[in-house]
Amino acid sequence: MKYSGSGKDAFVLGVDIGGTNIKYGVFRGTKDFMRLLSDGSFPTDRSEGGKYVFSDFFRRMEGRLSEDGLDFSKIGALGIAVPGPVTEGRTVHGCPNLGWGTVDVRKAAEMYFHGPVYAVNDANAACRGEFTYGAGKGCRSGVMVTIGTGIGSGIWLNGTVLEGAFGATGEIGHMPMHPEAGPERLCGCGKTGCLEQYASASGILKTAELLRAEDQSFQEDSELTAEIVFKKAKEGESWAVRTAESASEMLGHAFAFVSCVLDPEIFILGGGVSRAGEAFRNRIQAAYRKYCYWPSRDAAFALAGLGNKAGIYGAAQGAFSLFCEPNQKCSAAGSG
Amino acid sequence: MKYSGSGKDAFVLGVDIGGTNIKYGVFRGTKDFMRLLSDGSFPTDRSEGGKYVFSDFFRRMEGRLSEDGLDFSKIGALGIAVPGPVTEGRTVHGCPNLGWGTVDVRKAAEMYFHGPVYAVNDANAACRGEFTYGAGKGCRSGVMVTIGTGIGSGIWLNGTVLEGAFGATGEIGHMPMHPEAGPERLCGCGKTGCLEQYASASGILKTAELLRAEDQSFQEDSELTAEIVFKKAKEGESWAVRTAESASEMLGHAFAFVSCVLDPEIFILGGGVSRAGEAFRNRIQAAYRKYCYWPSRDAAFALAGLGNKAGIYGAAQGAFSLFCEPNQKCSAAGSG
Repeated sequence: MKYSGSGKDAFVLGVDIGGTNIKYGVFRGTKDFMRLLSDGSFPTDRSEGGKYVFSDFFRRMEGRLSEDGLDFSKIGALGIAVPGPVTEGRTVHGCPNLGWGTVDVRKAAEMYFHGPVYAVNDANAACRGEFTYGAGKGCRSGVMVTIGTGIGSGIWLNGTVLEGAFGATGEIGHMPMHPEAGPERLCGCGKTGCLEQYASASGILKTAELLRAEDQSFQEDSELTAEIVFKKAKEGESWAVRTAESASEMLGHAFAFVSCVLDPEIFILGGGVSRAGEAFRNRIQAAYRKYCYWPSRDAAFALAGLGNKAGIYGAAQGAFSLFCEPNQKCSAAGSG
Repeated sequence: MKYSGSGKDAFVLGVDIGGTNIKYGVFRGTKDFMRLLSDGSFPTDRSEGGKYVFSDFFRRMEGRLSEDGLDFSKIGALGIAVPGPVTEGRTVHGCPNLGWGTVDVRKAAEMYFHGPVYAVNDANAACRGEFTYGAGKGCRSGVMVTIGTGIGSGIWLNGTVLEGAFGATGEIGHMPMHPEAGPERLCGCGKTGCLEQYASASGILKTAELLRAEDQSFQEDSELTAEIVFKKAKEGESWAVRTAESASEMLGHAFAFVSCVLDPEIFILGGGVSRAGEAFRNRIQAAYRKYCYWPSRDAAFALAGLGNKAGIYGAAQGAFSLFCEPNQKCSAAGSG
């Protein structure tokens, strides 16, 4: 099966490959005026070191599109977000969640699709999505922070996502907040006291368990999730309030460091933990204003606007950009 | 007196206005191949709120040039670095060291000079200088850190100095390293525990005085300077070694935060304190590698290459760029 799309009625497919699901969106338009025609997801086939990820996805995708009355051969370009560091818009250097080592994503996709392929790190795709079609639309600079199992971020500067020298741009989850911490805050990176050991979903759980155990008045010993912690905090449960405060405090402090470097216009909060909503956002912003250098005190704080679709938007927008000159409107006419 | 330069034999004048001295350099060439013809400095006339800074400077400058056999009327463009936040390459919003409020630098200079004027913050000028003609030449990204009375930095990204949303980009001196610190580490910004309260010349002195007072074996009570501290550290004096270690540790830790955001190729160390030299550089790099997220561990650390001339290089290079298209060689032909 090989596909190629061209002409004014061509589509762009944005794909966001995660360890559990692959999300997709079919878009029409231009990079500046994209319209989502349909979207959905499939389970990720991680069997045998992830060797069937693409074959399984493209097989299912073709079926799904024809159910939706769309024709795969009309797809003009493909944007693929992957959970690992990407260089040159094509090669990913290891995706532990998929079982992948270094993979040339473009080459792998070209087995099933003829046309321009854009590969991008998933956090950077979400950043691109939020700053072109979400909460950051119109901003010149900002940080899209994803707070989930870990903490990652993408940095938006003058119309593009920043790429660093060693593939570690926006790795704010590994900010050395408390390098003196003990093994109870040991991070996957090998150090202790990284930001995500306190403020990611798993970091929040650690704090909650410690504080709940200390709380004499609280006898329950049920299993916790970050969601339950925030629910209990809303109900005024003391240990949960202190947990939420501690995580917000740590995030506000970390963002103050970011501002002393980048001085961004806006911080966008996404990922599972950000579903704690406005109260969490307000706490983080209050902490930030306490710690930041005063000229940056008016940086905006917003919740992500595209939810878990930010990645497919960003991947598709990057793919549209492949055949668009800057500031020029153009349709998704592929290289056929 | 009005001047204007044009033609192939025109010069560019780079000026770096400080609270004590105004440094200048006369350059010929193009933005990519500048040659310093002559340089020097004058005292800054700060009388009456700095109202004579420009008139005094241009009067002296004309005299100095003619002594050097150069003709002021051949100056095609002017780059001016000022100690305050600059917007739009022309307006500075307060220079406490000069007694200035908001000043339209371009307009003020045009009283004495006809032709393109480029105004720039002094730390950003030094950054531009180091990354175009100094230790950072050829690097795509990096941070030029000036460690003097305070700590400032400029951020180089893809051929230009980064400008932030609120004029606070690269203000790493105000990173909230120990916000819980007491009044002995009170910063000019109103907070306690900022990086520069530990690792600038004045911060280093604070630490040295504390540690020397603790040191029972050390009875001397002479006045200290950062230079003396580093000299004593070299001689193995215990309190001085601990002071140097503590400052380097704090800088390495701070730079690890920077890397989690920007992931730069190189850190360049300039300013008075950086004259402590290779030993200081090595200590900072060792601390950095201890704290940083591992992918960024190979970021380079270099001492500034242009010394106190980085500002005049950067100001002149920015002025040359005013009439140069990107990637195009061009001479300093002014708009006459």
